[in-house]
Amino acid sequence: MDRTMKPPAEIGMEVIDIDTPALIIDLDRFESNLDLMSREVARLGVSLRPHAKTHKSADVAKAQLLRGAVGVCCQKVSEAEALANNGVNNILITNQIVGRHKIDRLVELSRNAEVSVCVDNSENIADLNSAASSANLILNVLVEIDVGGGRCGAPPGQPTVDLACEISNASHLIFSGLQAYNGQAQELRCYLERRQAIENVCNTVNNTIGLLKENGLYCELITGSGTGTWEFEGASQVYTEIQAGSYVFMDASYLKNEDVNGQMGTAFKSSLYIYTMIMSINSKNYAVVDAGLKSIAFDQGMPVVVNNSDANYYEPSDEHGLIGLDKSAIRYAVGDKIMLVPGHCDPTVNLHNWYVCIRNDRVEQIWDVTGRGALY
Amino acid sequence: MDRTMKPPAEIGMEVIDIDTPALIIDLDRFESNLDLMSREVARLGVSLRPHAKTHKSADVAKAQLLRGAVGVCCQKVSEAEALANNGVNNILITNQIVGRHKIDRLVELSRNAEVSVCVDNSENIADLNSAASSANLILNVLVEIDVGGGRCGAPPGQPTVDLACEISNASHLIFSGLQAYNGQAQELRCYLERRQAIENVCNTVNNTIGLLKENGLYCELITGSGTGTWEFEGASQVYTEIQAGSYVFMDASYLKNEDVNGQMGTAFKSSLYIYTMIMSINSKNYAVVDAGLKSIAFDQGMPVVVNNSDANYYEPSDEHGLIGLDKSAIRYAVGDKIMLVPGHCDPTVNLHNWYVCIRNDRVEQIWDVTGRGALY
Repeated sequence: MDRTMKPPAEIGMEVIDIDTPALIIDLDRFESNLDLMSREVARLGVSLRPHAKTHKSADVAKAQLLRGAVGVCCQKVSEAEALANNGVNNILITNQIVGRHKIDRLVELSRNAEVSVCVDNSENIADLNSAASSANLILNVLVEIDVGGGRCGAPPGQPTVDLACEISNASHLIFSGLQAYNGQAQELRCYLERRQAIENVCNTVNNTIGLLKENGLYCELITGSGTGTWEFEGASQVYTEIQAGSYVFMDASYLKNEDVNGQMGTAFKSSLYIYTMIMSINSKNYAVVDAGLKSIAFDQGMPVVVNNSDANYYEPSDEHGLIGLDKSAIRYAVGDKIMLVPGHCDPTVNLHNWYVCIRNDRVEQIWDVTGRGALY
Repeated sequence: MDRTMKPPAEIGMEVIDIDTPALIIDLDRFESNLDLMSREVARLGVSLRPHAKTHKSADVAKAQLLRGAVGVCCQKVSEAEALANNGVNNILITNQIVGRHKIDRLVELSRNAEVSVCVDNSENIADLNSAASSANLILNVLVEIDVGGGRCGAPPGQPTVDLACEISNASHLIFSGLQAYNGQAQELRCYLERRQAIENVCNTVNNTIGLLKENGLYCELITGSGTGTWEFEGASQVYTEIQAGSYVFMDASYLKNEDVNGQMGTAFKSSLYIYTMIMSINSKNYAVVDAGLKSIAFDQGMPVVVNNSDANYYEPSDEHGLIGLDKSAIRYAVGDKIMLVPGHCDPTVNLHNWYVCIRNDRVEQIWDVTGRGALY
């Protein structure tokens, strides 16, 4: 990106003056989410290691660490490098790091930060050990176990035990435990279905822990979970660590999850918005806004218009979107600005260079999206 | 983004050593596309003003200008600023620029670059004139006319003429002509349907040109078109300028367009790829690759696996995707790297910080995505 590019706002300005489209954090709601999760994990007696793939921000990570998080998770080495360069130094990469170049960077990173990594493949263990040995360093390694996600991860039971043994026998690796995440369970809308899915996950993990014990292998960490199911893994007595990430922002998709009382939404509140402007109205049925595919992610559905449930966002194109006005009592004019709750926060954040953080109708802080474009 | 972040490749390295996921340009194919369009617009006798929203790159823009393009198009002021800061100084913003802050930046930019802008609203004309007058500058302004896109643009006929008169009567604005783009026609797969759609567009535009003439208003520019329909506007004798953008890269979606002979794909070739690595295989049915929602856009469908039409990409998540292997004769191993043609190039490019440009199996250049994150 052009290095002279400026953020869409300045500290102290009124919200109405923020340039659009912009990625907004409502600090009161954001901090309330952080505080709530901090209290909840303390009550449940588990550690919190929030997933930084959601926010990709050293500032957000530090706010989480200040409230007791034991570290953060990342998906990519470059993401971990970006955070470590900006003061975040306890990072679990919840992913397989494959190939000599990536592994060398991982090992290098572990000189300056406490880094752990996941494996699901025997050759990868050998490659990690070889790189750690060359660098004369020790790497902490977890086995990722497939608990129904159908993506990465070794099958539960003996295959996972075999990999754990290989790690344990490697000269420069330490077997730290299991990474067990079921992404598909996160957005089962029905509370009881989510609870049942995680009960099944916990049984699977527990059986493998038993097998590991029989082989003399102890799991220091059982880590996983997400914003849809943290309360179940947290209370399970199986998991030692919770990796929820989206709870800081609560996108429109997670707000569709039913809580224990059958209500939509959970105790966490949406705190992340796209601020957008109406740039054209030449129809009585719709207005055109300046935020489209390059500023909002649509994989989990359309963003939701704040303070006007009768207006709906539709037909995103690269730099535009339509706001349907057929049912809207509010009449808009060109130049009006509105807030949208994005459907999916993680890929939405990745589209922006800066967070504009607001409180009491003013811009209080501007934060870099530290790991923006850290894809590899 | 973290300012110490490095590109996923170094100049001179072999393609196999490029870190993944990475955004790749095949320079031979890319240059062949540029040369072909250059010859075609010369043959048709129209100007080429490629849309830089596709590539957001000063390097690509300069390669287009070197081959005779009269300038480029942008959608956002920040995109135009980023390109102008990097040596591209003839820019048409094919969009409405609304609000005092944006308009002030636009006027400021016009001190150092030849900038034009589109309007579809009367108040916006007054605001542009007021800002240009305060700065003691003259702005070139086109009326955007809605030719069936159903998004921005004034209705054809009298409403467009009224706006053109207002521009013409404004003290510091010059009426330059019409912006007339029909996005929906671009991806009508059938050649004859696309041709018919643009015939209708040209009739609409011609009628309005006639009305403008009756009112003493002359259109220096009739500008629009895209990669799906450039040959029709180019041959129309109505358009003076062609704004095709995607022809430089040709995404998987455009390659589904039928040409005059009923063949899929056109004379332009795909030249943009996502290089991705297989990072996990624990099933005989699929492999997991390291490119997902944060490195590929999915709004126009799934990416296509290069050199293996029997393997299909599916189930993208934030940092992963699956490659279905049920029908694949090629067997993959963890660590193998493959090329994907993205479904939609514009929003895919916007996810990356760099282009890795390759030729003869080596990295020849690394280009900045100059306007990455230039959303406002």
